[in-house]
Amino acid sequence: MAPKKTVGILGGGQLGRMLTHPAALLGIPLLILDKGGYTPAKQTLLAPPGTTHPDGAFTSEEHIRELAKTCDVLTVEIEHVNADVLAAVVNEGLCDVQPSPATIRLIQDKYIQKEHLAAAGIPVAPFKALTNPSTDDVRDLAATLGLPMMLKARTLAYDGRGNAPLKSTDDKAISDALAFLGDRPLYAEGWAPFVKEVAVMVVRNTAGEVRSYDAVETVHRDSILRVCSAPLRADGAAMRGVNVRARQLAERAVATLDGAGVFGVEMFLLPDGSLLLNEIAPRPHNSGHHTIEACNTSQYENHLRAILALPLGDTSLRVPAAAMVNVLGVDGNMGPVEQMADDALAVPGATVHLYGKAESRKARKMGHITVTGSSDAEVQSRVRTLLSQQPDLDQKFIDSVAPPSVAGHSHTAPLVGIIMGSDSDLPTMLPATKILDKFGVPYELTITSAHRTPDRMVTYARSAASRGLRAIIAGAGGAAHLPGMVASETSVPVIGVPVKASVLDGVDSLYSIIQMPRGIPVATVGINNSTNAALLAVRILGTSVPSWQRETEGYQHALEQEVLGKADVLENMGWDQYVKDVLKK
Amino acid sequence: MAPKKTVGILGGGQLGRMLTHPAALLGIPLLILDKGGYTPAKQTLLAPPGTTHPDGAFTSEEHIRELAKTCDVLTVEIEHVNADVLAAVVNEGLCDVQPSPATIRLIQDKYIQKEHLAAAGIPVAPFKALTNPSTDDVRDLAATLGLPMMLKARTLAYDGRGNAPLKSTDDKAISDALAFLGDRPLYAEGWAPFVKEVAVMVVRNTAGEVRSYDAVETVHRDSILRVCSAPLRADGAAMRGVNVRARQLAERAVATLDGAGVFGVEMFLLPDGSLLLNEIAPRPHNSGHHTIEACNTSQYENHLRAILALPLGDTSLRVPAAAMVNVLGVDGNMGPVEQMADDALAVPGATVHLYGKAESRKARKMGHITVTGSSDAEVQSRVRTLLSQQPDLDQKFIDSVAPPSVAGHSHTAPLVGIIMGSDSDLPTMLPATKILDKFGVPYELTITSAHRTPDRMVTYARSAASRGLRAIIAGAGGAAHLPGMVASETSVPVIGVPVKASVLDGVDSLYSIIQMPRGIPVATVGINNSTNAALLAVRILGTSVPSWQRETEGYQHALEQEVLGKADVLENMGWDQYVKDVLKK
Repeated sequence: MAPKKTVGILGGGQLGRMLTHPAALLGIPLLILDKGGYTPAKQTLLAPPGTTHPDGAFTSEEHIRELAKTCDVLTVEIEHVNADVLAAVVNEGLCDVQPSPATIRLIQDKYIQKEHLAAAGIPVAPFKALTNPSTDDVRDLAATLGLPMMLKARTLAYDGRGNAPLKSTDDKAISDALAFLGDRPLYAEGWAPFVKEVAVMVVRNTAGEVRSYDAVETVHRDSILRVCSAPLRADGAAMRGVNVRARQLAERAVATLDGAGVFGVEMFLLPDGSLLLNEIAPRPHNSGHHTIEACNTSQYENHLRAILALPLGDTSLRVPAAAMVNVLGVDGNMGPVEQMADDALAVPGATVHLYGKAESRKARKMGHITVTGSSDAEVQSRVRTLLSQQPDLDQKFIDSVAPPSVAGHSHTAPLVGIIMGSDSDLPTMLPATKILDKFGVPYELTITSAHRTPDRMVTYARSAASRGLRAIIAGAGGAAHLPGMVASETSVPVIGVPVKASVLDGVDSLYSIIQMPRGIPVATVGINNSTNAALLAVRILGTSVPSWQRETEGYQHALEQEVLGKADVLENMGWDQYVKDVLKK
Repeated sequence: MAPKKTVGILGGGQLGRMLTHPAALLGIPLLILDKGGYTPAKQTLLAPPGTTHPDGAFTSEEHIRELAKTCDVLTVEIEHVNADVLAAVVNEGLCDVQPSPATIRLIQDKYIQKEHLAAAGIPVAPFKALTNPSTDDVRDLAATLGLPMMLKARTLAYDGRGNAPLKSTDDKAISDALAFLGDRPLYAEGWAPFVKEVAVMVVRNTAGEVRSYDAVETVHRDSILRVCSAPLRADGAAMRGVNVRARQLAERAVATLDGAGVFGVEMFLLPDGSLLLNEIAPRPHNSGHHTIEACNTSQYENHLRAILALPLGDTSLRVPAAAMVNVLGVDGNMGPVEQMADDALAVPGATVHLYGKAESRKARKMGHITVTGSSDAEVQSRVRTLLSQQPDLDQKFIDSVAPPSVAGHSHTAPLVGIIMGSDSDLPTMLPATKILDKFGVPYELTITSAHRTPDRMVTYARSAASRGLRAIIAGAGGAAHLPGMVASETSVPVIGVPVKASVLDGVDSLYSIIQMPRGIPVATVGINNSTNAALLAVRILGTSVPSWQRETEGYQHALEQEVLGKADVLENMGWDQYVKDVLKK
């Protein structure tokens, strides 16, 4: 056994705090450099015996050098550090620094970062430098980049503090934007007409091993992250494979940077399904908080593994769906923050993370809440509850992030969809609803026809996965195209129920549904047997939710008891009497 | 907002340490009473500003009284505390104590605990008190209770330190056992011929709300817990519903005790499926460690919620399967412990928990490793890897806990089973293997016939769920009973492939498979279409493992591209030429 290496962290805020937990689990000694003895990170891990966490600014050269002498590797929880001192620490052989000081320096200046990425062939939005900008300079740039255009500070910009969108080239609009950004080096960026913002956490260890997490969708408000949903899903043909493509792009971008650790890669998803890289953070990131509960190994543990030359942990999601909602300060009082945390205790699947900050400020990140669930729709309805508990959010924003569920008789977060081509199929399909009711499975029921409402059918099928459906029961009679057509437009298992029409005894429906071409399966059940379709859906749910597997076992046990009971009655009553009394024939 | 209540914990070991994490997340101030400043629990949460964790024995009256004055509620991480002092603390109104001192006192004496449970109608193994036992007294008891018989210390007994199994009534055997147990009050217990040991964590808050976690299987060695697997599964008709029954029994037992908090309830599962209660711990328990990663709310967070009158969190598993493996000290060196932790880093889905204990001792609990996975079989194979990294375990024990996978061509931890009634069906079923290979789905393939090997078929079907199968593809021709019979014996989705036999064009097989009675569904695909059966299995897996859902989308996209490509060729080549050159007709 090699002796445990000591890690020094520059910065003792919430990201440092979340690094302390895996450090404790793995027995990794940590020393945290920040001002004060009770910062968020220092609260949750004592310094090793005989040492104390250094008390000083994480930018202080003296303190960094002192810390470097007692550590094996330094890392950062914030990129706004003194990269020159870190480079000197490495050059003088005081200790290792990860990620490399050169990468930290490059990322600190967003303009240089963009130049670097563009030069490496990574797609980015068009951008231009702005040196000592005049109103005319800005107006010229807007003529090139178009409106709206983003004016951005090159350095020390985060959580909206360095971004000014410019929607007009009025003198006033321009001078307001320049005044907001202050006396800092600036650059301008063309507007990316994104349909979603996307992030991918990438981790690389000192041996060069690279892994990425599932892509997530991020929702910002006033440039501050509010909600992050995993995994990313986007409907429509152009969006096919977007999760994989986002990971590939993020890994390619990180491959252009030196050093080990976690990198948070933010991207824009455009309407045609293509991706533009926005920016990279050389550290664990707010859009990876959910990995603590939702993934096999969190971004925090993987950051420590990466910089310590340990094998990387599995980045897979261990839950079907997850989301993260930030808890921001409302004003100078802790009351609203504590109230949001308290309210979240009643939300199933929610885990509250308070950061232990002594003071609240408007828009300060005070904590976050992770929710996991058995489907996107379940997670979304929980996110909606959490957002409704946030005092600064209006209903319009909440509706846009986590829309209210469809009204009507259907469940608001269905796991199973029951569809049929015609209302005449309804009596045949009703037994399926009885079974799902009996098992407590949330479902929706509607009419959509392959022949009469083809667009509606396609929309329904394409959105099924992202709405959280895990099985679709489709009933159809005669030519019976509905189940097969729906299966062609979704990756969700489709269960076909052949409905007996007026002729051919349902054999026409059966053959139409079951004889699918190789490539697109339909799970077909017996003619008119929607009961079995629903039981099959419950079995499918049971493959991921153990309680439904047990419920199925219980149901089968009850069937057995029922038949055994009838056999007893038959034995005692005699068969002649049984036919008269029980079968009433 | 009510001000945050301060919790005092008697004991600063690993259970206290695991309480500190949710305390930090929820901002609950904790004060930990134990000797020393760097105990496992004190390492991971600073005392609130202006206070320090008290330094003293957790049994010290003076320290408990001092702590009580500064806390709102006291709780315990070990039941071997001074219940009288705790009762006085409550009576004098110093602070609340949860669970109640009366419950802690009752549980401290295992004989009184058993008497209490038996009096409440909870099934327990037969037991008798042993006051100042002579060899003859022991022999008399053995005549009543039978052999083997357990001699147990009534108090201060845990991790095997108070149990002596008696297999013979030789003078020497008896005197050895009595000598091992020492000069303590004893009792004797009849041997419970268990097939599995079972545990359920139950939580009750101060408002009386009760929730239990899924039952788990526990495996002990020398009376020390080594492995815990969740959820409990047991094959066979007698075992149906055992998970639910175990939870009900545990909840009933806890209902007989006063006070709030988490209770660890240990039980024996007998061959006839019935359960005997073994003992109860009035605190978080080793058999609930996995709840940190595997459940929506951990036993630790729920313990804090329970004693603080907060709403209880959701106890559901958020993963399909999980297990916990203890990391025990091998000797006085930390090396082997650190080696086990290091080795586990390479196991996917494993989370290492080291407890930060300064010294190792043989059989001391130094840490644990939680594994989660997408099936029982996957978790079991990971457990096998972890156990093989433990220096004190022999292969026989490892094989008994996590058996080696079946040899042969099948995957060792299959998620899909492919079965057929006859080797003549194999050519028809092979395309299914190609699809599963293409998607990287682990599967097994074998021959089992409903008519010629009915026992083998029943065994296969009954063990399918507990072996982690999430879909069974069954091919059969002619009378084609296999898919339906297998579906009758399992809760796993069964996909039926009608194999075209020598007559009737496969319609006989199709009807035999699809026209199942209401109650037992078979997902039937087209005649001979095992390709679609495998694709359906992948879709079913995609409902719980998002990556397979994305793979299905990618597959459908590739199909689309393929057909579009052919359409291009047709357009350019002309149809006459196409028939000749491409179709070769």
